[in-house]
Amino acid sequence: MLKDSLDIYGDDLHEECGVFGVFGVENAPNLAYYGLHALQHRGQEACGISAFDGDKLTTVKGEGLVTEVFNQQKLDKLSGHIAIGHVRYSTTGGGGAMNVQPFSFHHYTGDFALAHNGNLVNSKELAHYLEVRGSLFHSSSDSELLAHLVKKDKSEDMRINNIMEALNMLEGAFAFLIMTKNRIYACRDKHGLRPLVLGKLGEGYVISSETCALDIIGAEYVRDIEPGEVVTIDHHGIRSSRYSQYQRHLMCAMEYIYFARPDSDIEGCNVHSFRKLTGRYLYEQCPTKADVVIGVPDSSISAAIGYSEASGIPYEMGLVKNKYIARTFIQPSQEMREKGVRMKLSAVRSLVKGKSVVLIDDSIVRGTTSLRIVRLLREAGAKEIHVRIASPAITHPCFYGIDMSTREELLSARMNKEEACRKIEADSLEFLSEESLLKAGNRSELCMACFNGCYPTSLYQNKLNKE
Amino acid sequence: MLKDSLDIYGDDLHEECGVFGVFGVENAPNLAYYGLHALQHRGQEACGISAFDGDKLTTVKGEGLVTEVFNQQKLDKLSGHIAIGHVRYSTTGGGGAMNVQPFSFHHYTGDFALAHNGNLVNSKELAHYLEVRGSLFHSSSDSELLAHLVKKDKSEDMRINNIMEALNMLEGAFAFLIMTKNRIYACRDKHGLRPLVLGKLGEGYVISSETCALDIIGAEYVRDIEPGEVVTIDHHGIRSSRYSQYQRHLMCAMEYIYFARPDSDIEGCNVHSFRKLTGRYLYEQCPTKADVVIGVPDSSISAAIGYSEASGIPYEMGLVKNKYIARTFIQPSQEMREKGVRMKLSAVRSLVKGKSVVLIDDSIVRGTTSLRIVRLLREAGAKEIHVRIASPAITHPCFYGIDMSTREELLSARMNKEEACRKIEADSLEFLSEESLLKAGNRSELCMACFNGCYPTSLYQNKLNKE
Amino acid sequence: MLKDSLDIYGDDLHEECGVFGVFGVENAPNLAYYGLHALQHRGQEACGISAFDGDKLTTVKGEGLVTEVFNQQKLDKLSGHIAIGHVRYSTTGGGGAMNVQPFSFHHYTGDFALAHNGNLVNSKELAHYLEVRGSLFHSSSDSELLAHLVKKDKSEDMRINNIMEALNMLEGAFAFLIMTKNRIYACRDKHGLRPLVLGKLGEGYVISSETCALDIIGAEYVRDIEPGEVVTIDHHGIRSSRYSQYQRHLMCAMEYIYFARPDSDIEGCNVHSFRKLTGRYLYEQCPTKADVVIGVPDSSISAAIGYSEASGIPYEMGLVKNKYIARTFIQPSQEMREKGVRMKLSAVRSLVKGKSVVLIDDSIVRGTTSLRIVRLLREAGAKEIHVRIASPAITHPCFYGIDMSTREELLSARMNKEEACRKIEADSLEFLSEESLLKAGNRSELCMACFNGCYPTSLYQNKLNKE
Amino acid sequence: MLKDSLDIYGDDLHEECGVFGVFGVENAPNLAYYGLHALQHRGQEACGISAFDGDKLTTVKGEGLVTEVFNQQKLDKLSGHIAIGHVRYSTTGGGGAMNVQPFSFHHYTGDFALAHNGNLVNSKELAHYLEVRGSLFHSSSDSELLAHLVKKDKSEDMRINNIMEALNMLEGAFAFLIMTKNRIYACRDKHGLRPLVLGKLGEGYVISSETCALDIIGAEYVRDIEPGEVVTIDHHGIRSSRYSQYQRHLMCAMEYIYFARPDSDIEGCNVHSFRKLTGRYLYEQCPTKADVVIGVPDSSISAAIGYSEASGIPYEMGLVKNKYIARTFIQPSQEMREKGVRMKLSAVRSLVKGKSVVLIDDSIVRGTTSLRIVRLLREAGAKEIHVRIASPAITHPCFYGIDMSTREELLSARMNKEEACRKIEADSLEFLSEESLLKAGNRSELCMACFNGCYPTSLYQNKLNKE
Repeated sequence: MLKDSLDIYGDDLHEECGVFGVFGVENAPNLAYYGLHALQHRGQEACGISAFDGDKLTTVKGEGLVTEVFNQQKLDKLSGHIAIGHVRYSTTGGGGAMNVQPFSFHHYTGDFALAHNGNLVNSKELAHYLEVRGSLFHSSSDSELLAHLVKKDKSEDMRINNIMEALNMLEGAFAFLIMTKNRIYACRDKHGLRPLVLGKLGEGYVISSETCALDIIGAEYVRDIEPGEVVTIDHHGIRSSRYSQYQRHLMCAMEYIYFARPDSDIEGCNVHSFRKLTGRYLYEQCPTKADVVIGVPDSSISAAIGYSEASGIPYEMGLVKNKYIARTFIQPSQEMREKGVRMKLSAVRSLVKGKSVVLIDDSIVRGTTSLRIVRLLREAGAKEIHVRIASPAITHPCFYGIDMSTREELLSARMNKEEACRKIEADSLEFLSEESLLKAGNRSELCMACFNGCYPTSLYQNKLNKE
Repeated sequence: MLKDSLDIYGDDLHEECGVFGVFGVENAPNLAYYGLHALQHRGQEACGISAFDGDKLTTVKGEGLVTEVFNQQKLDKLSGHIAIGHVRYSTTGGGGAMNVQPFSFHHYTGDFALAHNGNLVNSKELAHYLEVRGSLFHSSSDSELLAHLVKKDKSEDMRINNIMEALNMLEGAFAFLIMTKNRIYACRDKHGLRPLVLGKLGEGYVISSETCALDIIGAEYVRDIEPGEVVTIDHHGIRSSRYSQYQRHLMCAMEYIYFARPDSDIEGCNVHSFRKLTGRYLYEQCPTKADVVIGVPDSSISAAIGYSEASGIPYEMGLVKNKYIARTFIQPSQEMREKGVRMKLSAVRSLVKGKSVVLIDDSIVRGTTSLRIVRLLREAGAKEIHVRIASPAITHPCFYGIDMSTREELLSARMNKEEACRKIEADSLEFLSEESLLKAGNRSELCMACFNGCYPTSLYQNKLNKE
Repeated sequence: MLKDSLDIYGDDLHEECGVFGVFGVENAPNLAYYGLHALQHRGQEACGISAFDGDKLTTVKGEGLVTEVFNQQKLDKLSGHIAIGHVRYSTTGGGGAMNVQPFSFHHYTGDFALAHNGNLVNSKELAHYLEVRGSLFHSSSDSELLAHLVKKDKSEDMRINNIMEALNMLEGAFAFLIMTKNRIYACRDKHGLRPLVLGKLGEGYVISSETCALDIIGAEYVRDIEPGEVVTIDHHGIRSSRYSQYQRHLMCAMEYIYFARPDSDIEGCNVHSFRKLTGRYLYEQCPTKADVVIGVPDSSISAAIGYSEASGIPYEMGLVKNKYIARTFIQPSQEMREKGVRMKLSAVRSLVKGKSVVLIDDSIVRGTTSLRIVRLLREAGAKEIHVRIASPAITHPCFYGIDMSTREELLSARMNKEEACRKIEADSLEFLSEESLLKAGNRSELCMACFNGCYPTSLYQNKLNKE
Repeated sequence: MLKDSLDIYGDDLHEECGVFGVFGVENAPNLAYYGLHALQHRGQEACGISAFDGDKLTTVKGEGLVTEVFNQQKLDKLSGHIAIGHVRYSTTGGGGAMNVQPFSFHHYTGDFALAHNGNLVNSKELAHYLEVRGSLFHSSSDSELLAHLVKKDKSEDMRINNIMEALNMLEGAFAFLIMTKNRIYACRDKHGLRPLVLGKLGEGYVISSETCALDIIGAEYVRDIEPGEVVTIDHHGIRSSRYSQYQRHLMCAMEYIYFARPDSDIEGCNVHSFRKLTGRYLYEQCPTKADVVIGVPDSSISAAIGYSEASGIPYEMGLVKNKYIARTFIQPSQEMREKGVRMKLSAVRSLVKGKSVVLIDDSIVRGTTSLRIVRLLREAGAKEIHVRIASPAITHPCFYGIDMSTREELLSARMNKEEACRKIEADSLEFLSEESLLKAGNRSELCMACFNGCYPTSLYQNKLNKE
């Protein structure tokens, strides 16, 4: 699958969101800017930063990349020692300016702000529960729900008990940051579906969806927030509370396979190393003879190199992606495309011509991109094309924050491996096994619902099939 | 006073807001665009339009002028037969994207949107009242208060009784539009402080802060909404309800003097004609001999022509305003200004030199602009400068939506007429009397609180003087 | 005629250009910015500034208004004590970035820059003359021609003799500024068709198309450049040279009638005063009884006030222009327009209804705008509409820099006064006589070629009628 | 060396330019858009396209990336079957809008346009030669020189003889495209310093700096233009002329090492394959034991993989580049940087910690980037860092179109290998030999002037050392 910030084929998995928080460091909003920039791959639709300077809560947010939403002037509107930020790809709630995070709330007991990565499965139920109690919603976002739940008991200020009670009402995947004028609460769902890590920077603390954002600001990794844990950060330091005795470690497999940056470590495992191992296991599962190994850039390069190392088949840069693709790129008309105008991916004829190719991709969603890439390689003269997918076949939609297609559109929900192979016009097609996936992460469990339909929560009103 | 969309001297009265609604007409959002454009003088900071297409409520809004916030693509996001819009200058709540209107709310009983012109004096009290009952606010806007008040009783849908009950809790100045998927409610405060008119367009209806926006879209003026009235517009037509038996006609005098467009009629009186009469009465109050009458462009031109007609002294264009001033204009540095670089206003030497001048201005706030203009005319060679203000002296701040300076900064709050005359370096200074103001409008009452301190409501926690 | 920077009806005369130069003053480019801003009405399509800092010639230019092309960063690229600037409406050469002025040239004898207002009638002949001698042109601009003519003799540096010889080859209307690293040459055509004035600012000098730009930067008016004169400004002061013994004073009448800012003085006569007199003479030529006098904003207001003063008929603001019209305004669709959506001009019903109106306009080009305005007033209830044009009927196209329509499209070239009156649906129509025009300017001659076809130069290949 | 479109460390080699032409194909300007987009890596400062539609020559160009300069509206201004385009990084002539290419010229014998990649060494001499013959230059570009040289003989139209005579006067590196209304001339310097290839698309032809731009529009590679050749493309097809009997094949080595896209073939050799071989030969030259091989992204990845394959040391993604770096990125302040905020490059601690690293980079210019990267890896815990440069040491500046630092700033011009190693704080440092470089390209010669000072032309007034 061709991962791209600017999905031109319309066939990608979409990143969900990233959150970032800074406590107790000078110029916290500036650090949040660099942190969000490092998390940009998790959401390119919108972003924002909220900061407290004393009692004063200010939020700057908008639609676009971090470098589009913020300029020096806008960043200068933010000041103080405490800030949270968010990058977003629209999941629940759809797009639109009103859903851009962080959300800020005014309350006589003190203003506060929230940022959220993940997706709740019982949001409709919660919204109804709150509306009949008098709540009124601006957005269609899960984050607003949490704010109302926390405040529903009219307590005098923000207390950990309120937050823990509220978190217990949420079902689904989440990594939440709640910021008051003197605290940040960092919360992770009890299934451990979304990543969230704690770092240390000087006297202060940093919270981030991925470790790559710690590195970029020179912060030191401390530990992952635990499933079912709330970490409270204030001037006393950090305290841990557990809002649920239930606890699993069902990290979303797609974080490793596709979403996360290769330089991040998730729950102790480096993402690039994970991917290299998936490439290795792909070869071991089904050794194939070929002249070259080619990876679909950028997310499948690690797996391709792993395959190459395991097989001894040389890795070649047979597919090249134009790195100047931008939102303002004028897409070729149908007529242009028929005439052969390619868009963001080129096959390198001199490396491919007459060769038998092992093509490594991280996943297949609808199959349309795979078909295009196979054809691209054929036109460039590839003799044989053996597609190897560095994850199991996706057969079920995700309800925890990943915008896959509907089940009807998923290639592997509609057909078996042989049919799929013919559909994408490959000479052979293999998927990584679930066992190999766990082995690559050196762990006993992952959320693999999209591969096997074993959803860790009730799905409430969410439907497996479109009606 | 030099009225300008782009206040470079920082000394203007600021417009508050304008609202516009369309019901039962095709392309309602497009008409709202043209209506808002005609109301642009009422607020240049931000604007937005909300529209229902069936059940689907969409809002496009942002900071900037109507022509900046909307392009064809953004306007095309809106569709349907019912829309409300808003232009805004920040009053309560301060600036910032979160306060840009209309506000839209999601609720299981049906989504709705609000737009508001005016200012409440009991907003802090209402916010506290609601927060202790569990409300949570995104913005610091009065509009959000009304939404929560309307919804506080958890009724199954939006009912006129809920709205009337909610309106009765509001104290201050307002013209409110509430839009549900099949209705617009148009509400005016019981003191009649802010204008709101009803028009007819084909089979549908239009609601606007001023009549000039009816003209621009070819709608026919029907009547002004009455103080204390709610007009409900739906597919049955219009119905009138009165939420309060208390009713006055205390239209803000500044609407006539300065804010409204000269081509608008407010409660039956044309604004340009009103202003011409103030010029006439200024002359009659205190006949002055002079060579030329000069008005401060643009808002004082009508009064200057009235003065000229009454006195027989020729009206000359002795002050000219650069009409290309834009937000992006690079302001001259202090050094440049000292060297004589003017900004937006020029005196015409050949019309002014050696002349005795009657200078007509609509009002004086802090006096700094008046001083600058007097000096500009002196440098251009004026022999005598007699300043005539087409309204009484401003001595009290406004709490109903007009952003004057604080009382400490008001020229006439600090000094009497003679002192003020010396301060602005004029040869003489006269203000219009309150009686003449009423006579110009041919009416028995106006809100003249900024001239005489007679506020029509309690001021609650608002303070006359800064502490 | 409705003058507007943003011509929505497509029926306006178009301004040609404005030039501005500063010599011997600190921050010359900054002053040029303010000067150009004051000349913005002369050209809104593009603008630019060239400046020498020592030997280094830098130019910043682009398409758009002064406030659009320049921001602080771009203005900061320019420095030094000598600068020239230009605002442009496309005449010869058409639009496009390559024709944006000033033009800068690199030459081993020293770099130089040019800016030009006006239009040559023998540009095709000159281009051919130069091309067969080896010249190569980037643009289709007259300014580039002059540069090549000046340099055609390969003299070692820029000499006044080369410039004078070059100027003698030009036929048509021009006000030229030529800037070398230590001089500005200011040149005016020998017929005196385009204005150009000299001002003094501290120890330095300023050159401008109009005096309004002197006022804005605090410069003192010295005198108009004479027809056929070159003024050389350098560190010795100013010197005058006369490149032609032929000299007339055929200032373009349209400068007074329509183009120039009312606060400018052209050859000793204030533009606003001139226009007031045309209004007065219009009444005296043909006294008409009516209830109100209305002027088409903005350029006809002065004449309307003059008419009102002469006739005693009150002047009313019966037409109001929306001042927020911008380039990004979304124009109403045909369907919207048929439904009655107006654009930039509104008639004020309460001032017009049932009234007999004298409508003052400065000129009629194609007649389509006049027809629209007459209909607008009729729809607003005007009983009678007597159109009075403050200039003679336009019957011939201009070849000296004013972008009128072709002769075929000119209303008065196609029909006599009675036919024209019916065409625009007025109750009566009168034009100012040529004699009154001269009397308003208190002068014996003006270029009135567009009224009477008496062109002061040969027309060369330019055609009176389109073929 | 860290290659980047947005050079934040200010230490990169800068790409020079790319040219692209289309003849005889519908929508030629659209194809030029996609072609330039594929050549974007060759110049990100400015770009433009010129096209003939019949006799009408139109140019759209500006500063910025292809996706920034062009939008649909601007692209739609261009039409026809013949177009040339250019992407630019400023070399001779400096930045600024006036140097943006293509250049278009108006001439009575027919308009024409030019685009140029490369740098002439005798441009000052040629400019003087032309100026004393009456030429006048707008820009400081080599392209304008060629236009004047071609036209200097006043021939009636553009003839191949004029072009060949003109080309013979040029000394230096160039790939020139000249477009008239019915022809494209494609010219390459006689030393063969800059690449230029010919492709076929349907009935028409394509000319491009690199083959990657042929692939993107579905054109078929035909052959490289020969050194000293002019290819004329018109409706008769293609004709070859040789303007010089002198001919060498001194392709710029840096094209292979650093500039060209890995998917391009230059004179029959694929760039990625070339780079892989340099990595292989680096190992063979000096076998080093280590735990991991790491390449500096993006340009050194191929060499790193080659090194890994040759050595058996696993390749790891130990350095990750943020791909969302954009022109509008707010750079960290000095204070932020001291606190540890990184910018575009991160080291992956989990892959690097405790490891002995072979770090592959394509080249070293000033050494500051190398030092930063070495320190980055040390901070991430690398035990040993062996820097291997996939090209010889740069000791001399380039005068043929590559913007290196001055000689004084070149690390290897100032110090020997051992000193350089200490300077960049590496444990060891090795460069590829010139022999290995030739062997990687399987060719007998390359321009290696920057490595050994053997310039293929006279340097004229260009100085080896700054004075």
